[in-house]
Amino acid sequence: MDLSFLDRVLQIVKDERKKDVPLVRFKHPEELEAILDLDIGQEVNDDDLERCVRQVLQYSVKTDKATFKNQLYGCTDPYGLAGAWIAEAFNTSQYTFEVAPVFTLIELKVLNHILNLFGIPNGDGIFSPGGSVSMLYALVAARFKAFPEVKRKGMRNLPEMVIFTSEDSHYSIRKAAHWLGFGTESLRPIKANEHGQMIVSELEKAIEREKKENRYPVLVNATAGTTVLGAIDDLNDIANVCKKHGVWMHVDACWGGSLMLSPKYRSKLLGVKRADSISWNPHKMAGAPLQCSVFLIKERGLLHEANSAAAQYLFQQDKFYDVSYDTGDKSVQCGRKIDAFKLWMMWKSRGDIGLSVLTDKVMSIAQFCLSATSKMEGFRLVSEKLQCPNVCFWYIPKFMRNKDENEEWWDLMHKITPKIKEQLTLTSKLMVAYSPLRQHKNFFRLAFTFHPELNENQVIEMLNAVKLSGEAITKEMFP
Amino acid sequence: MDLSFLDRVLQIVKDERKKDVPLVRFKHPEELEAILDLDIGQEVNDDDLERCVRQVLQYSVKTDKATFKNQLYGCTDPYGLAGAWIAEAFNTSQYTFEVAPVFTLIELKVLNHILNLFGIPNGDGIFSPGGSVSMLYALVAARFKAFPEVKRKGMRNLPEMVIFTSEDSHYSIRKAAHWLGFGTESLRPIKANEHGQMIVSELEKAIEREKKENRYPVLVNATAGTTVLGAIDDLNDIANVCKKHGVWMHVDACWGGSLMLSPKYRSKLLGVKRADSISWNPHKMAGAPLQCSVFLIKERGLLHEANSAAAQYLFQQDKFYDVSYDTGDKSVQCGRKIDAFKLWMMWKSRGDIGLSVLTDKVMSIAQFCLSATSKMEGFRLVSEKLQCPNVCFWYIPKFMRNKDENEEWWDLMHKITPKIKEQLTLTSKLMVAYSPLRQHKNFFRLAFTFHPELNENQVIEMLNAVKLSGEAITKEMFP
Repeated sequence: MDLSFLDRVLQIVKDERKKDVPLVRFKHPEELEAILDLDIGQEVNDDDLERCVRQVLQYSVKTDKATFKNQLYGCTDPYGLAGAWIAEAFNTSQYTFEVAPVFTLIELKVLNHILNLFGIPNGDGIFSPGGSVSMLYALVAARFKAFPEVKRKGMRNLPEMVIFTSEDSHYSIRKAAHWLGFGTESLRPIKANEHGQMIVSELEKAIEREKKENRYPVLVNATAGTTVLGAIDDLNDIANVCKKHGVWMHVDACWGGSLMLSPKYRSKLLGVKRADSISWNPHKMAGAPLQCSVFLIKERGLLHEANSAAAQYLFQQDKFYDVSYDTGDKSVQCGRKIDAFKLWMMWKSRGDIGLSVLTDKVMSIAQFCLSATSKMEGFRLVSEKLQCPNVCFWYIPKFMRNKDENEEWWDLMHKITPKIKEQLTLTSKLMVAYSPLRQHKNFFRLAFTFHPELNENQVIEMLNAVKLSGEAITKEMFP
Repeated sequence: MDLSFLDRVLQIVKDERKKDVPLVRFKHPEELEAILDLDIGQEVNDDDLERCVRQVLQYSVKTDKATFKNQLYGCTDPYGLAGAWIAEAFNTSQYTFEVAPVFTLIELKVLNHILNLFGIPNGDGIFSPGGSVSMLYALVAARFKAFPEVKRKGMRNLPEMVIFTSEDSHYSIRKAAHWLGFGTESLRPIKANEHGQMIVSELEKAIEREKKENRYPVLVNATAGTTVLGAIDDLNDIANVCKKHGVWMHVDACWGGSLMLSPKYRSKLLGVKRADSISWNPHKMAGAPLQCSVFLIKERGLLHEANSAAAQYLFQQDKFYDVSYDTGDKSVQCGRKIDAFKLWMMWKSRGDIGLSVLTDKVMSIAQFCLSATSKMEGFRLVSEKLQCPNVCFWYIPKFMRNKDENEEWWDLMHKITPKIKEQLTLTSKLMVAYSPLRQHKNFFRLAFTFHPELNENQVIEMLNAVKLSGEAITKEMFP
């Protein structure tokens, strides 16, 4: 097979990683459609294809830049990327040992290493296509454990079930509640404190209330690293409540789970080993290329029992090798990418120590950013507590300072934050997230991920960019 | 960032694609564990890492070989692979226009091209992590269309629902029925004819029976390309029944959907445009690297309405661009790979005509294989009808020919087929699927996918390999 286009790909990637390539050349959808030749009906030769691809990338966001702070993922680990390329080239589905002998052992090896890290060495796990699917796995496991007949008989004749989750938790639980047939009204949002942590006494009250009303508490979703504030719930306290009331405890550690890589920060997730299930996305903070998500479960065997369908054409029992290595029937998927391999490459290359150093670095830069933000004029922190490497703040333009911060003032702040973001994007200086949250009006979130160029100067530059854009935009809005 | 390991990856891929690399060097799990150094606790340098990676690949199955016939996927399209590498390197999540401006337009462009191809130009769609997840999408959409309150209220107070599917359909519908809260007992398997097609009169009788018993028929799952026989249900007849009874019609075209690429074979899926939803996996026959799966839906807007959760931190409505291009809330996933890009690369490079030529080639080779198998001594076809490029057969060793084919004879056949497969694998001649099906004892399935080396000699070689292994193994079993 002619693989010559892969040489071009490598060159393109190297070219686009050069320092002077801008973060983003923003164009509106109609503008882009006018510029780009995306039609696919007619064949093109390799030279034209390369031209098209380079044009596509010219207008794509460079998520490898340190100034890409728009999401909870960013620059990929180069070894993770190497692993991803190999996985694609050796195109393999992770269901049976016969087609994926080594990749099966690698998935088991990586899972065992992670299970040990999270303190549940006898558990089980699976790589899933992302945190939202891991959330589905958790709810399916908890429900099956409580009512195994659900697999055959469905939800109709089961008791009414309720699900507890922090009001700051990720929205995937809402989608999961719908898909799995609980319905979003089965969710019981629990109030969070000022730092974004679920208030455990409120959780316990809610469980007691629901029990009294004869509803079945099927799962408590604790979060280690909320999406916006990066809050880590008090996992130990939540575990106490779950144990007392016999409720399945899931920890959504998709974002904060990477802190487990560092002996220094691991204690932030104290109690995580008491969970019944855990999800962690190495494709977020740790920089594994998308997708790399792990679902862990304490009770070995349950994942298989809940999810198996024993397809005769794939999981034959009369094979010539030990079919307990055919792990695919634990999954809701049939064909499944070998996502464990990229993580294995990263880990193999860096070792436990290498990954812990990167984690410490991310946290120390975030701490620096938090301190710098608290001191810089015009910046105000949403929370002064560093839990995960999220720093959330408002930028208050000069003309708004020392004013009565009434409703009108905050409404203006709500409008100005997105305007600053627009300016930052259009000038390609920084892509940063913003969001309202509970009573808070729109504010910025800077979230740090593993990055080779992570340093303090870069943080100061980003904050200065926010300041400059903030002043430029107010001049434009109120000349 | 130091990308030098990517140069090594490219070299490794080229080395492992050489002609003399064997399909498989089979080792049992314990043997492999003893040979390989998979531990990840300690860091290794690049040279050692390369050594480990080469060792991993040495014992991995080369799915790019023409003799890899174990599954419904195989060799990747080189342009698809190039697209996959770019997607990994430019690590991007497909949820909002701001982070994925061009990739968003590309997904829309590819989806529209496919919607036109399948005859539902005004429909909508999404790329999903695989056929099983697409099956979940279909059931969620059908249920939401029938009972929109399910999103809030769940399944408990809804009428009892039933799902109709061919007894030969893919097992993902069993997993979906469990996960979504219907329960596997809600499935109504419909008998298939000798060629593996759902018997439509049986379907209609079943629907009428269920209606009479006040159960709600929520979805009919038609299949275009069953997993084993490659059967294509009579989609037009099924559409008539679905229309008459007001039932959602889903077509699982994960395998057979690729036939739509060819004007010559498209008519095999006649009636597909009457479906309410369709799934197609270009990562199967068409050789897009895993994962590349499309879910299509006729009613525009329904996917969004059913699945949206309107997360404030991601799908803000006060952005500075047209937020109708933020397509991620249609998905059950949050972070989502840009799987459309690899398909776009393939299509851009080959055009409609290039892909139709590849489809015709696959079908013509399969037809050749069918004829050759029907003529070769000792081979017996399971079905003589070519629907998708699946050829299913038994190999009858010499000592079993011209005997009374009683129960004992078939039991022996059932045991011999896996033994032949073992022999073929251990000698690295061919990896081929086998399966029992309904009343049929274990038989072989050769399924053809796009491959640059596809030719008639290769087919003859594979059949001869089966014959040689069959005779060798019987000599060993009955010396």
